Parts: sequence; C-alpha cells; structure tokens
Amino acid sequence: MAKKSFPLSKVYSLLEPGPVVMVTTARGGRSNIMTMSWHTMMEFEPPTVGCVISTSNHSFGLLKATKECVINIPTVEIAEKVVGCGNTSGADVEKFERFCLTPKPAVRVGAPLIEECFASLECRVADASMVSTYCLFVLEVIKAWVDPAVKNPRTLHHLGRGNFMVAGEKIKLKSKMK
Amino acid sequence: MAKKSFPLSKVYSLLEPGPVVMVTTARGGRSNIMTMSWHTMMEFEPPTVGCVISTSNHSFGLLKATKECVINIPTVEIAEKVVGCGNTSGADVEKFERFCLTPKPAVRVGAPLIEECFASLECRVADASMVSTYCLFVLEVIKAWVDPAVKNPRTLHHLGRGNFMVAGEKIKLKSKMK
Repeated sequence: MAKKSFPLSKVYSLLEPGPVVMVTTARGGRSNIMTMSWHTMMEFEPPTVGCVISTSNHSFGLLKATKECVINIPTVEIAEKVVGCGNTSGADVEKFERFCLTPKPAVRVGAPLIEECFASLECRVADASMVSTYCLFVLEVIKAWVDPAVKNPRTLHHLGRGNFMVAGEKIKLKSKMK
Repeated sequence: MAKKSFPLSKVYSLLEPGPVVMVTTARGGRSNIMTMSWHTMMEFEPPTVGCVISTSNHSFGLLKATKECVINIPTVEIAEKVVGCGNTSGADVEKFERFCLTPKPAVRVGAPLIEECFASLECRVADASMVSTYCLFVLEVIKAWVDPAVKNPRTLHHLGRGNFMVAGEKIKLKSKMK
C-alpha cells in the first residue's frame, strides 16, 4: 500500500479544509461506501470528528451497529467514483465492485480502507448520544494513513447538486494558529 | 451594501465546501470577530450549522450570552485580515478598527455583517445543550446575504499553521445529490 502511518496530532490538517470524504463501513462480510460532506473537527487530540449521517443512508445503520468506520479522502482523479457512491445505496449495490475501488484491511477497525484515496482515517464512535436528535456521530480517529507521495491533494469540495470546487493554490501567512 | 438577500434553502451550498469563516458577535456596544474552521451543516432547512468554539475564545462568552452571531465568509483578497482576526483576542483588540473591516447592521440579530465578506449568515443559537460537553453550538441561519457579483468566490480553506488552500476550479458531474 502506498499510504504510510500518519501522526494523529496532524489529522486536523486533513479535515479542516472541508473535503468531500468517503466513509466505509462493514458488517457480516459486506462493506459499504458513503459520500459525505457534513463533518467538522471537534478536538485536536485525540482527533475527534463530528459527522452528520442521515437515517436514510444505508451506512447509518452499519455505523450505529458496528461503531466503526474509515473516513477516506478522495481527490479529483476519482470524482466520478465519488459521485457514483453518493448516488447509489449500499442496500442495492456492492460499491467497491460497482465502482472498481480497492478495499484494503484496516489495522484497528473492521471497515476497509479505500486504496484509491490518498488518506484514510480509522475511526470508532466515541459518542452516539446525539444520533437520535441530530444524526450526529462523534468519532475518534484511532489510526491515520496518508500517501506521502501526494503533496498537493486536489480534494473535492461540494457546492451542491453535483458541482464541486477542486482544491486550488496554496498560500502561507504568518500565523500563531494551530 | 453589495450583498443581496439569499434563499435560506441554498445556504448549505456556501458552507458545505468547508471555507474558513469569520464569526461576528456583539454585546453592550462592542463587537468582535473570530476566525473559525470547525463547522458543519447539520440540516438543510431550516439551515442548521454546528460549530465548535473553544472556551478560550473571547467570542465563546459573547455567543453564549447573546445567543446570536453572524457567519461571514471571506475570500483570499482579505486573507491577511482573516489571519489577523485569528491571531488576536477581542478581549484586547477592537478588531473591526484594527483590521480596517466595515461593520454593517444585520436585520435579525445584533451582531454586525462584515461588508468585505461576500456572504453573511445571520444566526441564532438553536441549541446550547452540547456547549458544556463539546463546545458545540447548534446555530439556525435565519437570514442570508450574498454579493451576486461574486460568481467564483476564492474562499480560504485552512490546512493548519497559517497554510491555506484557495478555492480552485469548478467541475460539474451528473448527480442526484442535493
């Protein structure tokens, strides 16, 4: 695998820019992939992520039951697969097969990493108490993987209805912010 | 003002891409500005936003007390002001004055809009029950403003430690996703 272990203390730098992510879950020998944009960092360390997943998603039940998932971050090179996973349901479709994506075993959770994504974050549900009110899962990232060869990942950022902004130029300003 | 009223049903398209935002608050004739990246959409309509604001921020107390704020979305043209607001505290600095930003009265809340931002979302706190555990404020957007002349806002996306990705090209894929 091209991805290498990545420090948990730097996970926020992957999610703070707001990329579209692909959440994988697995149960009973079957796995699923869900495209998602509604997430936020909640704590630097341990890296804690809040994500809102509607009950209408097949992944909702899988995540609630298994309390484990992987947040994978795709880039524009696989944009059609990202949208394909967002427009199909795991109730009907085996998405790894349909969209020619490659599952790789995770180390800490049962859900698979997506090989074609440059970053993968193994997560466990840390708090499900806001699921009934807001469909909000609080996830703790327990193992992170990044492909060090990808220096400027052209992440996708959803503008609604299939329109995406692709990550552009980088700038650096003097700052004491983390 | 260059900004015009914007439909609440489309607010998600402004925040889903994950831009850095500037949150304004006001109390007792003084106002404050806070730079923030930790936010997520939680519901399409009414547009509901979750945001995590540390107790160490001067804005935390202002938002908790007044239950009102404005989420303003800046672009790269004012990147230095964005970072400036993130590196100073409203306890010491009157930020509108220090960073030459222009406050404009909101319609529904006491906090001001920032004229130099292309979009401003007037918000009230809808749920503060997760503030004590996660510093998570659930905000409802009750009035939205966007400058219609800004077709491709070059929003900022924080990569950590003063490094930002600037919004790049747009692509459109066939999708049934909202």
